[in-house]
Amino acid sequence: MNDRPAAGVRVDEARLTSLVEQLGRVGAQSSGGIIRPLYSPPWREAQDMVATMMSDAGLSVREDAVGNVFGRLAGDTAGPVLLTGSHIDTVVHGGAYDGALGVLSAIVALEACAAAGGTPRRTVEVVSLCEEESSRFHANYFGTRSILGLVAENEPELLVDPDGVTLAEAARSVGLDPARFSDARRDDIDTFLELHIEQGRTLVDAAIDVGVVDVITGFMWLEVVVDGRTDHAGATAMTNRQDALQAAARMITAVEGVALAEGHPAVATTGVVRVHPGGANIVPGRVEFTIDVRHPELDVLDQMVAAMREQCAAVATDRGVQVDLQVVKKTPPHTLDAGLRAVLQQAADTCGLTWRELPSGAGHDSQTMGTHVKAAMLFVPSVDGRSHSPAEYSTPHDCAQGASVLATAVRLLAWAPPQSDQQ
Amino acid sequence: MNDRPAAGVRVDEARLTSLVEQLGRVGAQSSGGIIRPLYSPPWREAQDMVATMMSDAGLSVREDAVGNVFGRLAGDTAGPVLLTGSHIDTVVHGGAYDGALGVLSAIVALEACAAAGGTPRRTVEVVSLCEEESSRFHANYFGTRSILGLVAENEPELLVDPDGVTLAEAARSVGLDPARFSDARRDDIDTFLELHIEQGRTLVDAAIDVGVVDVITGFMWLEVVVDGRTDHAGATAMTNRQDALQAAARMITAVEGVALAEGHPAVATTGVVRVHPGGANIVPGRVEFTIDVRHPELDVLDQMVAAMREQCAAVATDRGVQVDLQVVKKTPPHTLDAGLRAVLQQAADTCGLTWRELPSGAGHDSQTMGTHVKAAMLFVPSVDGRSHSPAEYSTPHDCAQGASVLATAVRLLAWAPPQSDQQ
Repeated sequence: MNDRPAAGVRVDEARLTSLVEQLGRVGAQSSGGIIRPLYSPPWREAQDMVATMMSDAGLSVREDAVGNVFGRLAGDTAGPVLLTGSHIDTVVHGGAYDGALGVLSAIVALEACAAAGGTPRRTVEVVSLCEEESSRFHANYFGTRSILGLVAENEPELLVDPDGVTLAEAARSVGLDPARFSDARRDDIDTFLELHIEQGRTLVDAAIDVGVVDVITGFMWLEVVVDGRTDHAGATAMTNRQDALQAAARMITAVEGVALAEGHPAVATTGVVRVHPGGANIVPGRVEFTIDVRHPELDVLDQMVAAMREQCAAVATDRGVQVDLQVVKKTPPHTLDAGLRAVLQQAADTCGLTWRELPSGAGHDSQTMGTHVKAAMLFVPSVDGRSHSPAEYSTPHDCAQGASVLATAVRLLAWAPPQSDQQ
Repeated sequence: MNDRPAAGVRVDEARLTSLVEQLGRVGAQSSGGIIRPLYSPPWREAQDMVATMMSDAGLSVREDAVGNVFGRLAGDTAGPVLLTGSHIDTVVHGGAYDGALGVLSAIVALEACAAAGGTPRRTVEVVSLCEEESSRFHANYFGTRSILGLVAENEPELLVDPDGVTLAEAARSVGLDPARFSDARRDDIDTFLELHIEQGRTLVDAAIDVGVVDVITGFMWLEVVVDGRTDHAGATAMTNRQDALQAAARMITAVEGVALAEGHPAVATTGVVRVHPGGANIVPGRVEFTIDVRHPELDVLDQMVAAMREQCAAVATDRGVQVDLQVVKKTPPHTLDAGLRAVLQQAADTCGLTWRELPSGAGHDSQTMGTHVKAAMLFVPSVDGRSHSPAEYSTPHDCAQGASVLATAVRLLAWAPPQSDQQ
């Protein structure tokens, strides 16, 4: 890269903090946390707000067919685009940083780069991706997949939210036309940089300023359905029951056991349980639950799922119920681009900040983007490692340091003359 | 009682079957089963239908302040009323027999008694009670408690359904005035007879025509809240979690263990589980679940709940979460009136049917009614013992036999001249 380090580009901490607070009020619940699922009214409000923020930062704004919002700073030479950003949808009762900080850091980073003077050699764009979390539809990385042309034609009609609304219907409700979704595809991007909160404790515990992600863990989502027999809770003897919940409780216990047996960094979680028919005086006839299982090695991931399948089947046989276990999503682990990681490390050094390489236990747009373009990720510390929670928090200082490293990296990649020009 | 048995009064099987089918369509779901909670539109439709059925049977119809519907056949002497009936509300995805059969059998029984000739000596009424199941509010026996004056003044405002609607608001939505609820109290009833499906297998397995209930089991309902910590399912190590669901799964397993350790007829059931925030990629921070625990001896019931409390606390300590366990309802066991049980047995003999005394594992209006007036219960066989399920079923033949025993008992109690008159 550049062996004469440019001065680090510093973003305005107060401005970044203000943008985070502003976007954090969209979809905020009186009971705590943010609910901002894809194509909901608060989602629409958030993307409109981000568009205004981009415009205020001097970027040319455009929304694509699926609702990704782009802010563009045109370079003075032709060639592929450097993209940076993250997503603005949230989990149910999520926080103000997951996704949002990557979008807002990218805006203030480009603003700071432009303020540092000169026209970029290559075109840089900020993206506010429409969807990453799968909190409404099993659609995750929908924004990224749309850009890469990885969305199946019938997917918008097949994906249904818990209220029975299809993704296509939801899109229409916020003024988008599902028939035009394929227009979102782009072939002009060659680089993606994503800033994100760590969502774990590594950086905070070691007092490191920023993290450079080496590998993003692989994960699988499973839907388990346990079928027993609905009966009267008072009149049915304990020995004459096929209680789907008693079976499910043992399967959920086994899910944890498989992750513990594999050891760190394996994780497995059941986060959703639906009990049917759901009356206090009714023996449950059916239980549905989810399993989220993750490991940075694909073989181990497959072995863990096989072990869960085996243990759930054994519980079902033991308790006289039926179990069906379906893999509804599988995302392999992804190693990020070595060259871009080096640029991020150089940018951190330039800014005089400490950094460490670390894996990501959470999935991110970068792992899908990284299958088609060079991608890298920067982590900022999460206080107490909290995330997907109203308690999610990163200090303004840490956020601004991360955004400054991002700005410095973008400046290195898009403003600095190519090495050959310098000879 | 009467030592010269009257000829048994026989009800019309086809007519009873037709009424059961007719009422069974109200609140029927395309997915199977009936959903007819208190003060819902199908509940309103059902009570209006029952009122018409009573009127067609020649009874004088009246709805009281809480929505109990009465059909009256006036006797030719003054004195307390003989009441017979059951409830028409259902559990979620319940069947067409639980409660409803007791109301409809009472209607055809009175019709058959009247057709057998003569005016009743004492007044007889059929009642279609508004609420028994607690499927919408923690209000069970609300109809019976209103008649007995056992509803606290602020209860209609305090009881809230899962959508946040108070019982008072729900009542207003079906045209009732909660300010008048206390008008439902009556002091003119001295006897209550309730026909009900068994909801177990005792009668079916032994091929007995009808059951005469000796004792109704006691039960307690508990609400358990487990508080852990919401975290990201990918980024939070297994050893750094306070997963409320993993703890709850072990508590739910322990609930079953307590009932199994106590042995038959103890039962314990978890029928409702709510996981918060409820995302597949979020470690659950809070889980709420119910426990329904039953035993015909009060001491044993208390001991079972104490054991559950202890075991849930031990799980909470072990897993670093908090647990709160509240008793939201406690109904002591109730022994039914010996004199009335003898009349039911005599009626069965008169009809030439086999009978057996047996306990009820399910709670019934009779146990609350029985705290203030003489009460007895008649069971008809349940095919396969199924109940609180769309599969709930009793054969038309068994239903009509039960209703004929009820009719014969009512005739014995209300038509036959007192023993002293016969001397």
